[in-house]
Amino acid sequence: MPANPATRYVYLGPEGTFSEQALRLVSDAPGHRPVRSVPEALEAVRAGTADAALVPLENSVGGAVGVTLDEMIDGDPLMIVREVVIPVDFVLAARPGIDLAAVRSVAAHPQASTQCRGWLRRHVPEAVVIDVLSNGAAAQAAAKGEQDAAICAPIGADGQSLVRLAERIADHPDAVTRFVLVSRPGPPPAPTGDDVTSLAVYISHDRVGALLSVLTELAVRGVNLSRIESRPSGEGLGRYVFFLDCAGHVGEARLGEALQGLRRVCADLRFLGSYPRHRWAGGDDTEPVVAPGLTDADYAEAARWLEGLRAGRPD
Amino acid sequence: MPANPATRYVYLGPEGTFSEQALRLVSDAPGHRPVRSVPEALEAVRAGTADAALVPLENSVGGAVGVTLDEMIDGDPLMIVREVVIPVDFVLAARPGIDLAAVRSVAAHPQASTQCRGWLRRHVPEAVVIDVLSNGAAAQAAAKGEQDAAICAPIGADGQSLVRLAERIADHPDAVTRFVLVSRPGPPPAPTGDDVTSLAVYISHDRVGALLSVLTELAVRGVNLSRIESRPSGEGLGRYVFFLDCAGHVGEARLGEALQGLRRVCADLRFLGSYPRHRWAGGDDTEPVVAPGLTDADYAEAARWLEGLRAGRPD
Amino acid sequence: MPANPATRYVYLGPEGTFSEQALRLVSDAPGHRPVRSVPEALEAVRAGTADAALVPLENSVGGAVGVTLDEMIDGDPLMIVREVVIPVDFVLAARPGIDLAAVRSVAAHPQASTQCRGWLRRHVPEAVVIDVLSNGAAAQAAAKGEQDAAICAPIGADGQSLVRLAERIADHPDAVTRFVLVSRPGPPPAPTGDDVTSLAVYISHDRVGALLSVLTELAVRGVNLSRIESRPSGEGLGRYVFFLDCAGHVGEARLGEALQGLRRVCADLRFLGSYPRHRWAGGDDTEPVVAPGLTDADYAEAARWLEGLRAGRPD
Amino acid sequence: MPANPATRYVYLGPEGTFSEQALRLVSDAPGHRPVRSVPEALEAVRAGTADAALVPLENSVGGAVGVTLDEMIDGDPLMIVREVVIPVDFVLAARPGIDLAAVRSVAAHPQASTQCRGWLRRHVPEAVVIDVLSNGAAAQAAAKGEQDAAICAPIGADGQSLVRLAERIADHPDAVTRFVLVSRPGPPPAPTGDDVTSLAVYISHDRVGALLSVLTELAVRGVNLSRIESRPSGEGLGRYVFFLDCAGHVGEARLGEALQGLRRVCADLRFLGSYPRHRWAGGDDTEPVVAPGLTDADYAEAARWLEGLRAGRPD
Repeated sequence: MPANPATRYVYLGPEGTFSEQALRLVSDAPGHRPVRSVPEALEAVRAGTADAALVPLENSVGGAVGVTLDEMIDGDPLMIVREVVIPVDFVLAARPGIDLAAVRSVAAHPQASTQCRGWLRRHVPEAVVIDVLSNGAAAQAAAKGEQDAAICAPIGADGQSLVRLAERIADHPDAVTRFVLVSRPGPPPAPTGDDVTSLAVYISHDRVGALLSVLTELAVRGVNLSRIESRPSGEGLGRYVFFLDCAGHVGEARLGEALQGLRRVCADLRFLGSYPRHRWAGGDDTEPVVAPGLTDADYAEAARWLEGLRAGRPD
Repeated sequence: MPANPATRYVYLGPEGTFSEQALRLVSDAPGHRPVRSVPEALEAVRAGTADAALVPLENSVGGAVGVTLDEMIDGDPLMIVREVVIPVDFVLAARPGIDLAAVRSVAAHPQASTQCRGWLRRHVPEAVVIDVLSNGAAAQAAAKGEQDAAICAPIGADGQSLVRLAERIADHPDAVTRFVLVSRPGPPPAPTGDDVTSLAVYISHDRVGALLSVLTELAVRGVNLSRIESRPSGEGLGRYVFFLDCAGHVGEARLGEALQGLRRVCADLRFLGSYPRHRWAGGDDTEPVVAPGLTDADYAEAARWLEGLRAGRPD
Repeated sequence: MPANPATRYVYLGPEGTFSEQALRLVSDAPGHRPVRSVPEALEAVRAGTADAALVPLENSVGGAVGVTLDEMIDGDPLMIVREVVIPVDFVLAARPGIDLAAVRSVAAHPQASTQCRGWLRRHVPEAVVIDVLSNGAAAQAAAKGEQDAAICAPIGADGQSLVRLAERIADHPDAVTRFVLVSRPGPPPAPTGDDVTSLAVYISHDRVGALLSVLTELAVRGVNLSRIESRPSGEGLGRYVFFLDCAGHVGEARLGEALQGLRRVCADLRFLGSYPRHRWAGGDDTEPVVAPGLTDADYAEAARWLEGLRAGRPD
Repeated sequence: MPANPATRYVYLGPEGTFSEQALRLVSDAPGHRPVRSVPEALEAVRAGTADAALVPLENSVGGAVGVTLDEMIDGDPLMIVREVVIPVDFVLAARPGIDLAAVRSVAAHPQASTQCRGWLRRHVPEAVVIDVLSNGAAAQAAAKGEQDAAICAPIGADGQSLVRLAERIADHPDAVTRFVLVSRPGPPPAPTGDDVTSLAVYISHDRVGALLSVLTELAVRGVNLSRIESRPSGEGLGRYVFFLDCAGHVGEARLGEALQGLRRVCADLRFLGSYPRHRWAGGDDTEPVVAPGLTDADYAEAARWLEGLRAGRPD
């Protein structure tokens, strides 16, 4: 689907941010539209004025992007069809002719300056950091000469014709941001053998027992968890929603059985999509291994056996 | 099936024991054949020389009848189709004319005298207990005058024309014996809403973790357990077989899913039957309650929902 | 401690935000110092230039404040000694003389305008929202006449002598922000019977099994969970840190035993404090009930019994 | 203790059975007294007329010896101080001069003939089996010429000066019987690093949930289970007692914590002893491995850490 040049995408703007950089990995066709906020992006998809939206889901430093989670479960169903994980690859950029020693002011989004705090202290200890509203706005401020330099995404520096004074300046060199491509519901992408399924699970009480029940439904079917976040459901105290990322695909037997179990025991459950796990180009990611007894073939064999018992033909 | 007068039954003999008394509850047709041992009874069914065998499975005082368990899982599959629970209703019986004060010797099977030990001490402290090989043999010894009295089943006293000197003499007044009616495999009896399913489960290691896995497969589907026994599997140390009695019927969705789970995770699993739970005449047994989310209707609804997700139609 | 007028507090500035409003509930002494960022606030405590810092931990709309979590576990130990929960009570404020119908531009922090989106659409659909860097900055922009009105905290409106055009304009009327007061380690506040214990738990693998182990250590001791967040630990992929809030106090037997269990089974564990649960003035909060067998008295009785067994004195 | 020649032992008689053979492994001093039944043996210990009783606990073919279990928990506390496991090493024995081909009748205890059924069918298909009341009685019947041969223990054949016509005739070559040496309560034998702890656990309901709780208390402390039996408690339906054998010693930290947990959550709990696991002479038994985090040292470290937290000294 992403290869279709006619697909109309929206993404969290402004231009020149990591969101645009992530969208380039999905489609390099022109004409994708930046929007001002995550709610606006998802509303465009719900309303049909866009086919899909690329929005941030979590940042390895800043954590979950709450507004994305909330907007996914508030309103008509939407479906994640792809994830894109990109390094948080901050650069310090300036107009041509300014070098590092001359930098006295740095425009930066507060989250960006927080992530580069150690680097700034070591390399430009005298510089004042001036807060701006986005990484794109930081690049613009440097381009206009409002500040000497900017912390921004590489794509933002390039878009404003800035020179990179330093690259990879984030204190956590492995920091990444995870974006998701969201569309209206439809049949999920085909299983690849290494997929993620995202869920929003409502439980009635803030009890370890209720959460244990949820995890046990997954564990019994050998479904691993790669992320869990609790959030108040907004419907009053004592009602929680948990966002889970599980290994597996809705089309697989073991995940299907686990989903049915959650459907039966949870106060509510929203399926947010099954999609291929992001794989790094040239990475050494290994295929996940399904535990003995939990493959689709094992499920089929057990179903056949049960049918035999019910018909009076044990083996 | 039990009502068919042409059905050929065998039961654990000799005549005049609790086994015969239990069989009378299944069929009062004449011509049922006592056999010498449980293996002989089950072999008659396997070989087709009998249609069903009535054998003891457990005694509330003596515990599991090991030979029955072992013979059930050793050889071609058999199936429990009914359970019969009768009170262990020992009587002290003697020839007419002998009264309690005159009793100086009592014939008894060792298990029977053990169960009546307190009563004997209080009521016939001077009497000597003479071991015999069965409750039926005890009645015969009293009838022949070899001993003054016998501890036996009511049916054994009647069969030998003995007079009951005392009734209900067992020290545990609630003691019962549970018999099962075993036949060759076939479609199980129809679900009644209050059924028992018996299983033999093999696990590879004597670890609490392995047993926890088994119980968790049941608990996740809300399947309660009414009995559990571990026995060495006879195939070498460190391999155990667990005999489980579960509430529910193989034809029900939640038990079916639990059985499939056990089939996938256990070293081996033998289904021993689904059959109505014994209910006492005039008893106040209450219908079992299935927990929310675990009825057949809940399973059907969750299956329909999952199908919708896979087809791209979430609700 | 909070009542000591000599205590030197820092809080997340600028002035006129919800942070300052929360700090007023802790101390109304003058001279508390706003700082630019959470890291700066916690560094002031670690360095001893402040005695305690008031920082946001989570927002019922925006979720966890990642930077607070990360800074708590990165560096020398710190300890939460109190929590303060305040309603997210946004007002729309303007200079005297401007009424609602005349508002054409609104200054707001992006998170604030997101939370008031529905209200703005209904009441000032023609107004343009102008992003600013904090709720305090929004009030200043309105006071200076840069924009017609501001979304801000009541304290921010008052501080800038603005008039409230509307109150409680957040779309989620129950939205709250939870702040914590953080100090250097010391004996925790005395148990009150209704306390929270915060933990950071490291597990080695992103597996549901590892997380189940953690929750089971808590569940076995009847320790309930009121919050859980997973975050990448920053030390490479596949190593996660979970932030947990548990019901109970480190000084209680059952929580003490659970903590020791986590200490033994987790890759790492950091205790972040035991402190009284926030209670609303006039609220109808009920005292938590400890399950049978899990009170301090039950623990003491069981310890006494075990001691007897070891000494050869069973009871 | 067993080495003390003055210790007065009783054992389940008559002479010439496996019980006597097992007792010889404990003490070869003369003068040990056979008693008629397990209740009599345990009463002798409770009354102080014997110091210890050797009684059978389970048989790998016949299963648990119910009367032993029941008598252990009914009355004043007793304590298992040692286990002795011996092969069920049946022989076919006859008076000198009778050879196998001439055997037409065999005296045997019903359990013994059941265990040798396959062998009898293959080697003496024409012989009639005559039931007698014990393995000792079988040997006597052969010695007196009442029958041609006897199935008995080697010690029984020797005691009656019989010749062994065949050895190891049980169908399960690995069959064993496990005896326990029971004394009045006292400090348990010192831990050896490979011990067994026996428990009787009462739960209130026949629910998988209640049993899961018990097993979870053990699993959380890494305590493995080597045996589990459910028995009706005799106190009315719906109240069960489980007999558990666990790996470990009451003196060890992890088992101590698990016992305290059971003490708190179970309806009732009786400690039946901690004693060295039986080891075969020349066997290749390996030492059990305690999982990481569960050694006594790990417990001590975690306790020290917790004490630090409570005192305000985190590490």
